Amino acid sequence: MLIAWTTVPTKVMAETLAASAVASHLAACVQIDGPITSHYIWQGKPEKTEEYRLTFKVLLAKISLLETWLHARHPYQTPEWIVVKAEHVAEKYLSWARENS
Amino acid sequence: MLIAWTTVPTKVMAETLAASAVASHLAACVQIDGPITSHYIWQGKPEKTEEYRLTFKVLLAKISLLETWLHARHPYQTPEWIVVKAEHVAEKYLSWARENS
Amino acid sequence: MLIAWTTVPTKVMAETLAASAVASHLAACVQIDGPITSHYIWQGKPEKTEEYRLTFKVLLAKISLLETWLHARHPYQTPEWIVVKAEHVAEKYLSWARENS
Repeated sequence: MLIAWTTVPTKVMAETLAASAVASHLAACVQIDGPITSHYIWQGKPEKTEEYRLTFKVLLAKISLLETWLHARHPYQTPEWIVVKAEHVAEKYLSWARENS
Repeated sequence: MLIAWTTVPTKVMAETLAASAVASHLAACVQIDGPITSHYIWQGKPEKTEEYRLTFKVLLAKISLLETWLHARHPYQTPEWIVVKAEHVAEKYLSWARENS
Repeated sequence: MLIAWTTVPTKVMAETLAASAVASHLAACVQIDGPITSHYIWQGKPEKTEEYRLTFKVLLAKISLLETWLHARHPYQTPEWIVVKAEHVAEKYLSWARENS
């Protein structure tokens, strides 16, 4: 199982993407937290933005599909998309994820 | 060191589990954040739930014990339990974790 | 790319560190979330503290420098500093990170 993160500018957009990803069986679960404050440099200038973070729990078999799906719907030109591999997942949780992704 | 995540339905439950895990030396530190919004499918239906997220910082030697301990106390039938391995931990922080787990 | 986490006691301190790390090209992006509640043992006693969490997105080449930089500025004697390796990062996001770190 993998964990993937992105951020979006509004709660409404976060809710829409989370619900769609789950309904499309691209992620077993998507969590939204925020508002968070992001600091970064964009076109040479330091920026500070309020955002909502999405945490996707994804099976290996779905991760490429989810990345493409998300980039087609994401409002940013260069969205955050960082994926981390789980070292271990509880057996029951993994079974549930397999049945629902 | 490992990082493990779960979610629970209330702040009170999150506080109780966090304090007990630390007092029982199963985790060096437990952080609570939320409320977060979780989207997932349960028994064939899309669900959306407010939850609190627990982030456990755990030594390798304690992770199995913590997983068993948590599942015995967790209110859900199929709690999230995802573990990620740290690539690196600051030396002082790791020493502190070893002394307190 | 790596993800690194620390926590600080105030939002103001979190903002200052995040903005400086980005301006110094030590991290491509720093996100602040919180307040979170941390449970841990300090000098033999269980403690519970409100904190703000910083999530740094960092290139491999900058991680040691960032660790040293952060420890020189961090108010705690033993700050959290946990680093996780990304399994995958979207190409455009990685390019952007390379140009801005």
